Amino acid sequence: MGGTVDLRPPDFDSLVDAARLLRGVAAVTPLLRSDALDARLGASVWIKAECLQRTGSFKFRGAWTNISRLPEDRRRRGVVAYSSGNHAQAVAAAARLQNIPATIAMPLDAPAIKRSRTESWGADVRPFDRDAVDRVGFAEALAEDLGRPIVPPYDHPDTIAGQGTVGLEIASQCRALGIVPDAVVVPCGGGGLIAGIATALKTAMPGVPVHPCEPAAGNDTLRSLEAGRRIALPGPVRSVCDSLLAETPGELTFEINRQVLAPGIAIEDADALHAMQVAFEDMKLVLEPGGAAGLAALTSGEKPCRGRTIVAVASGGNVDAEIFVRALNGPETQ
Amino acid sequence: MGGTVDLRPPDFDSLVDAARLLRGVAAVTPLLRSDALDARLGASVWIKAECLQRTGSFKFRGAWTNISRLPEDRRRRGVVAYSSGNHAQAVAAAARLQNIPATIAMPLDAPAIKRSRTESWGADVRPFDRDAVDRVGFAEALAEDLGRPIVPPYDHPDTIAGQGTVGLEIASQCRALGIVPDAVVVPCGGGGLIAGIATALKTAMPGVPVHPCEPAAGNDTLRSLEAGRRIALPGPVRSVCDSLLAETPGELTFEINRQVLAPGIAIEDADALHAMQVAFEDMKLVLEPGGAAGLAALTSGEKPCRGRTIVAVASGGNVDAEIFVRALNGPETQ
Repeated sequence: MGGTVDLRPPDFDSLVDAARLLRGVAAVTPLLRSDALDARLGASVWIKAECLQRTGSFKFRGAWTNISRLPEDRRRRGVVAYSSGNHAQAVAAAARLQNIPATIAMPLDAPAIKRSRTESWGADVRPFDRDAVDRVGFAEALAEDLGRPIVPPYDHPDTIAGQGTVGLEIASQCRALGIVPDAVVVPCGGGGLIAGIATALKTAMPGVPVHPCEPAAGNDTLRSLEAGRRIALPGPVRSVCDSLLAETPGELTFEINRQVLAPGIAIEDADALHAMQVAFEDMKLVLEPGGAAGLAALTSGEKPCRGRTIVAVASGGNVDAEIFVRALNGPETQ
Repeated sequence: MGGTVDLRPPDFDSLVDAARLLRGVAAVTPLLRSDALDARLGASVWIKAECLQRTGSFKFRGAWTNISRLPEDRRRRGVVAYSSGNHAQAVAAAARLQNIPATIAMPLDAPAIKRSRTESWGADVRPFDRDAVDRVGFAEALAEDLGRPIVPPYDHPDTIAGQGTVGLEIASQCRALGIVPDAVVVPCGGGGLIAGIATALKTAMPGVPVHPCEPAAGNDTLRSLEAGRRIALPGPVRSVCDSLLAETPGELTFEINRQVLAPGIAIEDADALHAMQVAFEDMKLVLEPGGAAGLAALTSGEKPCRGRTIVAVASGGNVDAEIFVRALNGPETQ
């Protein structure tokens, strides 16, 4: 996509405009705390519950913003997207709510709930084999065939602006509570959510470190931040965090993230599953493995946040019962 | 307790005062919707998510209000309570936050998470056998021994006033959303929550029917409403809805409820478990069986709410993993 899109980072005003577009359409998700979680971690932890967002993840914000900003003549033809599931549902929902068709390329191993939900929004789902087919190329061919624009999952200023509204809400909710967090931890796949959040906080809550949390097996952003340039992992990533399987940071997202992010935190699969169990017990929230990566950065290891005030973004809750049961059954079965 | 407490129903102003006492202490829980749930039911459903309340259920509201209104000389000696779990945790938390001791009588078969959470608040837990011991008598003996007041789980005007703040929030949240529900469905055990909610709505959102939802095996309120007088069930109730096991409506709660409630709805155990599964999939919320009784009234049977706008109170989320897994595994294992 590099040659065809405007790769300038969205500015703060673009996020504010996205919030306006989303008003009355997306949920303002709550910032939640629990005595049990705080006691467990010896810290003051606030969960930004994007699992309670429309379609069960933050992705609706970016999809809606992106589609809303398409020129009318392009939008009315419909859209194409590629996604392991959360962006798929989000684009399907946004398209349906705007009365335009959506065609979505999804990997064959996407969670069943994500595929069925995407279809239930009326989208035309085209499955592909993640190991054999390049998803971007597959989607670009679809888009050309259909004469429709692609809604990029992360590497686009309008998508990032939409996700950044999570950061605007965090800042205003923290202000209302009278708290200034010592850090914000955010699940990171392609980096669109955290790029948007960091853009928002740079202006709205400056000086607060924002840490990307990603699967240890897919630590492309962590390694790229350390190297100061985009590093591509060799081949498809295997992790229970199906929503965080990017093999390389986005061009635009990394351009933003390399300037503003604090160091990355690597999450083992078992840590993500444990964080899901903690969210079940302490927060009464259903998180998917990737959505729990931020919380996992706090609940794994040696209480790294003791005595501090942390905002953890819980980015999604679309998980099949089978995986959730695995998380509840604890480490001996993982 | 009949002889010793003031059995006048709380008025609307008492609820408003309770809301003032709870400000900054209890959560204002969100009123949530989901496209998936609405599509499933062909209705517009709003979930008042009290599972996200402090201690994981609405009970904190009543416990805090009740303890806060004790005369200073009685309060400082500490409190006694009896409860299968949610009221236990709530009293333990409220007492701890007010720096007074709490002694709590809990049945031996209370869910493990409820007992451990009560103990983690520093309460002195006294287990008893539900089949062999009268819980009220047991708690009254404890209270006399210790020279402390009992915090009644439902049959007290201050407890009811606290729970009624759920209704105040529903009314103000509905107003902000521009909706007027066709009905409100509320899980019902001793009847304190629904008595408080109905008291709030009678003034704040008049004319909206409020339906109690209770286990079919413990339908004391349903039968009492039909009979126009309090009916006691013969012996201990067996249901997966451990938080709704009252054998008879409270005196004061029934005095309120018989005047204001719409007909009761009986919930089978399998319906409550199914509603938990629906809340997992569609809402990303963890509900306990009793907390899902309101939603179960909508998700069981022949789409009874088709075309209507309903508020369902999800009263709690304190459930052991074992029961939650049973709910996720579906009817064949129930």
